[in-house]
Amino acid sequence: MQLELTHVYVLSIAVAVLAFGVAAYFYTWVKARPSSNKEIETISEYIRQGANAFLRREYVILARFVLIVGILILVFLPKPIWQGEVVDNIVMGVTYVVGAIVSALAGKIGIMIATIANKKAAEAAVTDIKSSFLTGFRGGAVMGMAVVGASLLGVTVVFMLTKSSAAVLGFSFGASSLALFAKAGGGIFTKTADISADLVGKVELGIPEDDPRNPAVIADNVGDNVGDVAGMGADLFDSHVASLSAALAMAIGIDNGVGRHSLLVLCFGALGLLASTIGVLMARMGTNGNPTGALNKSTYITTGIFAVLTTAVTFLFDFEIRIWGAVMIGLLVGVVIGIASDYFTNDNKKPVQNVAKASESGPAFTILSGTSYGFLSVLPPLVGIAISALISYNLCAAIDAANSVQYGMFGIAMAAVGMLSIVGMIISNDAYGPIVDNARGLVEMGDLGEKALEITDELDSAGNTVKAVTKGFAISAAGLTIIALLGAFMSEVNTAAAELGVAGITGFDILNPVVFFGMIVGAAIPAVFSAMLMLGVDRNAQRMVAEIHRQFKEIPGLLEGRKGVRPEYEKCIDIATVGALKELIPAGLMAIVATVVVGFVGGVQAIGGFLTGNIVSGLLIALFMSNSGGLWDNAKKYIEAGNHGGKGSDAHKAAVVGDTVGDPYKDTAGPSINTQVTVVSLISSLMATLFLAFSLFG
Amino acid sequence: MQLELTHVYVLSIAVAVLAFGVAAYFYTWVKARPSSNKEIETISEYIRQGANAFLRREYVILARFVLIVGILILVFLPKPIWQGEVVDNIVMGVTYVVGAIVSALAGKIGIMIATIANKKAAEAAVTDIKSSFLTGFRGGAVMGMAVVGASLLGVTVVFMLTKSSAAVLGFSFGASSLALFAKAGGGIFTKTADISADLVGKVELGIPEDDPRNPAVIADNVGDNVGDVAGMGADLFDSHVASLSAALAMAIGIDNGVGRHSLLVLCFGALGLLASTIGVLMARMGTNGNPTGALNKSTYITTGIFAVLTTAVTFLFDFEIRIWGAVMIGLLVGVVIGIASDYFTNDNKKPVQNVAKASESGPAFTILSGTSYGFLSVLPPLVGIAISALISYNLCAAIDAANSVQYGMFGIAMAAVGMLSIVGMIISNDAYGPIVDNARGLVEMGDLGEKALEITDELDSAGNTVKAVTKGFAISAAGLTIIALLGAFMSEVNTAAAELGVAGITGFDILNPVVFFGMIVGAAIPAVFSAMLMLGVDRNAQRMVAEIHRQFKEIPGLLEGRKGVRPEYEKCIDIATVGALKELIPAGLMAIVATVVVGFVGGVQAIGGFLTGNIVSGLLIALFMSNSGGLWDNAKKYIEAGNHGGKGSDAHKAAVVGDTVGDPYKDTAGPSINTQVTVVSLISSLMATLFLAFSLFG
Repeated sequence: MQLELTHVYVLSIAVAVLAFGVAAYFYTWVKARPSSNKEIETISEYIRQGANAFLRREYVILARFVLIVGILILVFLPKPIWQGEVVDNIVMGVTYVVGAIVSALAGKIGIMIATIANKKAAEAAVTDIKSSFLTGFRGGAVMGMAVVGASLLGVTVVFMLTKSSAAVLGFSFGASSLALFAKAGGGIFTKTADISADLVGKVELGIPEDDPRNPAVIADNVGDNVGDVAGMGADLFDSHVASLSAALAMAIGIDNGVGRHSLLVLCFGALGLLASTIGVLMARMGTNGNPTGALNKSTYITTGIFAVLTTAVTFLFDFEIRIWGAVMIGLLVGVVIGIASDYFTNDNKKPVQNVAKASESGPAFTILSGTSYGFLSVLPPLVGIAISALISYNLCAAIDAANSVQYGMFGIAMAAVGMLSIVGMIISNDAYGPIVDNARGLVEMGDLGEKALEITDELDSAGNTVKAVTKGFAISAAGLTIIALLGAFMSEVNTAAAELGVAGITGFDILNPVVFFGMIVGAAIPAVFSAMLMLGVDRNAQRMVAEIHRQFKEIPGLLEGRKGVRPEYEKCIDIATVGALKELIPAGLMAIVATVVVGFVGGVQAIGGFLTGNIVSGLLIALFMSNSGGLWDNAKKYIEAGNHGGKGSDAHKAAVVGDTVGDPYKDTAGPSINTQVTVVSLISSLMATLFLAFSLFG
Repeated sequence: MQLELTHVYVLSIAVAVLAFGVAAYFYTWVKARPSSNKEIETISEYIRQGANAFLRREYVILARFVLIVGILILVFLPKPIWQGEVVDNIVMGVTYVVGAIVSALAGKIGIMIATIANKKAAEAAVTDIKSSFLTGFRGGAVMGMAVVGASLLGVTVVFMLTKSSAAVLGFSFGASSLALFAKAGGGIFTKTADISADLVGKVELGIPEDDPRNPAVIADNVGDNVGDVAGMGADLFDSHVASLSAALAMAIGIDNGVGRHSLLVLCFGALGLLASTIGVLMARMGTNGNPTGALNKSTYITTGIFAVLTTAVTFLFDFEIRIWGAVMIGLLVGVVIGIASDYFTNDNKKPVQNVAKASESGPAFTILSGTSYGFLSVLPPLVGIAISALISYNLCAAIDAANSVQYGMFGIAMAAVGMLSIVGMIISNDAYGPIVDNARGLVEMGDLGEKALEITDELDSAGNTVKAVTKGFAISAAGLTIIALLGAFMSEVNTAAAELGVAGITGFDILNPVVFFGMIVGAAIPAVFSAMLMLGVDRNAQRMVAEIHRQFKEIPGLLEGRKGVRPEYEKCIDIATVGALKELIPAGLMAIVATVVVGFVGGVQAIGGFLTGNIVSGLLIALFMSNSGGLWDNAKKYIEAGNHGGKGSDAHKAAVVGDTVGDPYKDTAGPSINTQVTVVSLISSLMATLFLAFSLFG
């Protein structure tokens, strides 16, 4: 049977609409859950307002940024306006702005549902764990469905209307550049609040987590929403768009325009979202089940459905079986990497237990052993990425010996599409985490009783475990995507070279000193980027700690918990907001400016090296940070569960230090690096013509 | 004027002999310093015995390893014995063993002089700082002169006799493989002892550093010798040999045998040692001077002398001015990198002071801010390496357009030779550190009075400052050397390809999936390697802490300091020794085995990528670890000097945690990574023929 492009457009749009439908259904469902507690209503209103206030101020700043970049694109990209077709520049500028807007919307939708689902899940926990779980999960799924639906719809529509790889990459760049700042800004906000609340509350004063006396407690909950929900949504939206865009750009190169390979990309993308949609609809917690098991089961079911669907489609429509193979390799390796991350961050396994044990000797040993396991943990995903790139390349390169490089790189791009196919499910799982974390906070603050606290504790812990897995997965998928973007960069360069009438490139030779120069500089960028973010958190947290101290000192009766005395929550929210917005721009700009400088100094060859160095060091640091952070978090929880002296013991104090260090690792710097590398890759592709035409050493 | 090769041989050997002469003179001079204190004599005898006992046991194990590898080389390298010339295999096997023996000797000489110089410097401190400084410095210089003399002599003689790049690389591999284990083993020993002594002594019991009641105090001092003296000596011996070997291997490629480029390499190497020799002879502490100034002044003087000498020789003998330029670029960038490291680790500068301030909020902030600055600190050296590689390549590539790659890579190799030219001075400065650190310990344990303690404190602090600078320098120089070794690898592959009658290679294309596969795997190795070493320290320190606790509990009167009661020092030394020897082999073997596996899986292309990934991630992690470690050390000292509450304050406790984390970073894992990368590069060159002939995907 022959599949037409029109059919695929219809399929893509239909699946996206279906996903939106499911999101709307879940939204209504969650909203209809009962809620009656007055106290919780008040507090959750604080959270909602704080989150929306942050988002508004952040988006105002980012709107300016997007506008400026949009104008720059209009003038300079893909070619300076006085040299090329004006309409190309307009198309790219518009798609860029649309990409940014959709990315921002993804964050906004996430916040909307998360700030409702949290209180519903909290109140559901009073009755039973199953419905509390479902409320949290479906809240997350609203975001999952909306984000991936928007991604698929956006890419399909842009592609359908423009049929241009530059436009698709422009859309992707819009999504990424917003995600970069949303992730960084949200990450700084959330960890500022989290660290400060813990430091003064739990460590200094010994009051429980989420205690309403703590002035930073609302800011902490707001942070869960703006960092973990909105930031993460923008981030995974960006990865998904980038994976489809890179594959489409290469498909256009292979087919010399729109052809059957583009059709394949969109078709597999649509099937991935379809599988995720079925998966989230089926998700339930069994009567004897535990929440972690339920989340994992849904993921595996989605994976299975996707495998079945793609196999069927491949045979039915006579797709190239090798490309299907590349997709399956990506999917499989993604799952294996998830399992390996689990080993390093699960408290049933040796690493977490050893770090907990080492904590008995003091915080230095917590840090040392955690750092060591963090470094060890990069091995499985890196080897997994290396192997999946090698196999998927070789599988597809054999399709056409005359164009083996193009097909090979397309194979890698399809492996990335495969790995990210189930991202709808991944986002749902991921957003579930901060929702139940918030729910736990509301249960504590609203005094809903021991049973509800136990239930939300269990739900929260499942969120943490699953989060580590999905993070490893997301970083690895981004890794493959970025490799594919390297291929996209080369094909953009060659298109530009053909137009300019200069020699194209066949690759990037490491022994070419310009490539090497770019590579070494590129390797430094993720390190500097993450350092800047962490210093931002550090500075900001010190300001907030001072404010918390001030409130406990100056507000009479606050520490004693006198009835009617409330801390000034909004002051803490304000500090976190202002600080995050101040700190988020420099780091992102540094990465962008470095790319532009290297490009104009060393030309396209230097950029090839730069991207490579960036990928290698970015993957290394991101995996290290997100795994060691997850590990410390769970080592602390393991001790709190009564091991090595339990809460309040010296081991516990040491583990809290580890957790505090791990917080910005895993929630600020680590996951932002993904986006940083993606942004840099996309800029490079978009500026290929300029770098080719103007450069010092190139 | 024309310079003959024979003249250069004579020059090289003469300079090496001169260096030995100066070493012997300093040795006698140090030995003749007065010493009379009975208590110090006893303690220093403990240290001497402990260090020698460790070295003996370590060398016994390593002798077996060297023997096995020697036999493997004999059978398989450069070609399997049944395929090639037997005499080639014998030559390589012998040079390998000789390289290892000379490297071991370098360590042994260092220990010999350091364990004398420490007590002499301690007693000199009773009278005045100037003679105490000179004793410490000349003790270090014995090692500096002996090590670099041995390196120059060894390379010259092997080259003179064999005229083969394989033999020179074999010699270098022998030196490196011993250095790898010596550095790792010594690093584990020293940090096991240091951490345990501090943890129980300073943190738990609040007794001073170097207090003789502490059972680990002698082990700590032994550690300074086996780790910082013997290990560092073997390490820099290895870097120096590798830089000369890489340059010689490429010179042979350019001249198609022994020619004027080899002559250049040896000549510049000899001038570097000559400059260092003059520099150490001139080193004095002025009447109003401070020790840091004196050390830095000597370094700058040496740099100046080297610049003058090479300029003169270049004009006199009509050397290629572009090659001289490459050497100067290396030297210059080396100095700049040193200054940049100083910025991040000097307590007059913002980073150290900010970390000290952050410590007021607790250990988590010490770690977070230190980690951040550590990541920032990689930027200047990486950019410096990138720029010096780019410039030196382009400078020399222009010499002969037809062989631009060969000349360009030779230029990078000569920049590395330039950067390492003053290594004789660097080692002297570096070995000064542990000697005065030991002297401080002896002053404390021998109760030589407040004034002597103040003097040795000042000398010790200068050692720490200078150490951070020399470490940044050493890592960067190793970085350039390794880049040069990548070029050497390619020329070895092409020589082998010509012999086998197969196609050679022109480079390593990043978009070749086999190269990419190798690169990603190669990037993981330094992370895993350093994790294994740190876990080794961690495990070992936990054992030693338990032993110290036992002694304080079971030996009556120990804690109270009752007269005549001594702890069982030798038990702690034993634990450190056994543990270090157990932990040192797996990490080193892992790196070697990974190289061999990647080579036989992916062939020479995969190895090209593997080395690149290894270099990039190795430089990143090594620079991060050694700078953040130095920073934490000095932040602690800054607080101890009375800032932020001074000794005993909460900030101080937090800073001690930072220092404890930084210790294995900067003294175990960080500097060992250098050697790991060098070893892997050399193995690759040596096994080039095998990887070319037998591989799965190659």
